[in-house]
Amino acid sequence: MTGPMFKQVALIGIGLIGSSLSHAMRRKGLAGRIVGHARTAATRAKALELGLIAQAFDTPAAAATGSDLVILCAPVGACGALAASFADALMPGAIVTDVGGVKGSIVRDVGPHIPKGVHFVPGHPVAGTEKSGPESGFASLFDGRWCILTPPEGTDAAAIAKLKAFWEACGSVVEIMTPDHHDMVLAITSHLPHLIAYNIVGTADDLQTVTQSEVIKFSAGGFRDFTRIAASDPVMWRDVFLNNKDAVLEMLGRFNEDLAVLQKAVRWGDGETLEKFFTRTRAIRRGIITAGQDTAAPDFGRGQTKS
Amino acid sequence: MTGPMFKQVALIGIGLIGSSLSHAMRRKGLAGRIVGHARTAATRAKALELGLIAQAFDTPAAAATGSDLVILCAPVGACGALAASFADALMPGAIVTDVGGVKGSIVRDVGPHIPKGVHFVPGHPVAGTEKSGPESGFASLFDGRWCILTPPEGTDAAAIAKLKAFWEACGSVVEIMTPDHHDMVLAITSHLPHLIAYNIVGTADDLQTVTQSEVIKFSAGGFRDFTRIAASDPVMWRDVFLNNKDAVLEMLGRFNEDLAVLQKAVRWGDGETLEKFFTRTRAIRRGIITAGQDTAAPDFGRGQTKS
Repeated sequence: MTGPMFKQVALIGIGLIGSSLSHAMRRKGLAGRIVGHARTAATRAKALELGLIAQAFDTPAAAATGSDLVILCAPVGACGALAASFADALMPGAIVTDVGGVKGSIVRDVGPHIPKGVHFVPGHPVAGTEKSGPESGFASLFDGRWCILTPPEGTDAAAIAKLKAFWEACGSVVEIMTPDHHDMVLAITSHLPHLIAYNIVGTADDLQTVTQSEVIKFSAGGFRDFTRIAASDPVMWRDVFLNNKDAVLEMLGRFNEDLAVLQKAVRWGDGETLEKFFTRTRAIRRGIITAGQDTAAPDFGRGQTKS
Repeated sequence: MTGPMFKQVALIGIGLIGSSLSHAMRRKGLAGRIVGHARTAATRAKALELGLIAQAFDTPAAAATGSDLVILCAPVGACGALAASFADALMPGAIVTDVGGVKGSIVRDVGPHIPKGVHFVPGHPVAGTEKSGPESGFASLFDGRWCILTPPEGTDAAAIAKLKAFWEACGSVVEIMTPDHHDMVLAITSHLPHLIAYNIVGTADDLQTVTQSEVIKFSAGGFRDFTRIAASDPVMWRDVFLNNKDAVLEMLGRFNEDLAVLQKAVRWGDGETLEKFFTRTRAIRRGIITAGQDTAAPDFGRGQTKS
């Protein structure tokens, strides 16, 4: 079979993920044509200027019209209303997917709007940077990263297979799981880390005994690592926490219990507990590097990439 | 004036910092001769093999003998005993310093052992990686990073100036402050971030609803950032927490209060509080990049340094 995988792909939302998808699709010629909708005229103009899309539409419905793949690339809280607005424009046989970091709420909010004969396959590429907007995308963002698909029961197997092949062509490795399990896994590997990072940066920002300029100057002692993910898009993350409440609160509860144990060990000078705890965490880092999910270079290889 | 800054420098401990100091000194010819002591025969042999030191000694006293600069590069909890063991061997006029992440306890534990006529100037280079051991050092580790000196009141001004010039020649920018203020600043910029990172990695390690292989696979969602500092040397960090208890507990208390507010916002679906909180933390990241304390490249520039 020759020709692109999809005749027309509609990006609904053109930020970091939407723009990276455009780069990744064009790298491999996966789409005959890429069109898009963005909420603001400025983003639509920028996306056209950067060549991310061939045509920009004022409404989600106009972008979805004639598209055999429609990808929601918006904060998860916005996806239900977006789906409602383009539902009537969807072609029979088209695939609708998304890239949101929460999957249960997407199934709940988007699912009911999808007409019969259209295939709804929620997805989540576990990849990103702390940058936002259409200028921040790049073709290799998904290379070697996992993309999780959470098709509802009864979803057409051919549609799942086609979307899986699409993500693989974008560089990803694909795994399929239930929305609930996805939301539990991501609560610990992504949502809790972001909440904790936002929190510690906020704590530092509030100090008066230590000035903000001191926090910045001496951040290389560890703090700066947290500021990267705490610089991520605020609206996107607000929506993640509003929509994955139960799993986040469960993981946060466990985190707090563990922290109470460490706090007590610090208070009572229990060096044995501290050393034991600090030793076992090294193994996970090794596992991540072995699995190709992070660089083995010391300090994330920062030394080699001078700003 | 020509010739090296010091005739003989003794490294007491040859791990990441000690070996990096050797590289940095040799890069600029700061020492006529570098000698050293390490606790284990294996480290001493490795340090000789790597050319980090010209001579290895079984005892700290033998390394300190004839040295005009003695640098304690050991976990902070070990420094008092080491100083006691080499005190009698120190030359009049020599400078003794250290590189520990806590300064109050160093003044308390090391200070009393330093004989009259020897200058004691505690120091702390705010630099490092998650790697340990004599093989992990490199010459540029201190370039553009802060080094904090905390000389006790009445310390000889010429000795402070000389050690300042030494660190500047190693690539650092030097700041002088009191031990107490240092310990408060580092509690937030370094010690609390490490405790939190160790803790979240431990929480993830304990889960049963999410397998460890899932934690590793999907770590690119944010979790992997924490695993880097949670892979730091366990004994070094045990000693930091045992010796900076009050400041760490103070910062941890504030962190917990802030986290309770975020937890409540998640539980009650208070999107406004979340978005507001997540927005103000971006400014600190920008400050750190502007100050040259981190790379501006997205994702720490990981994309450019494939493992």
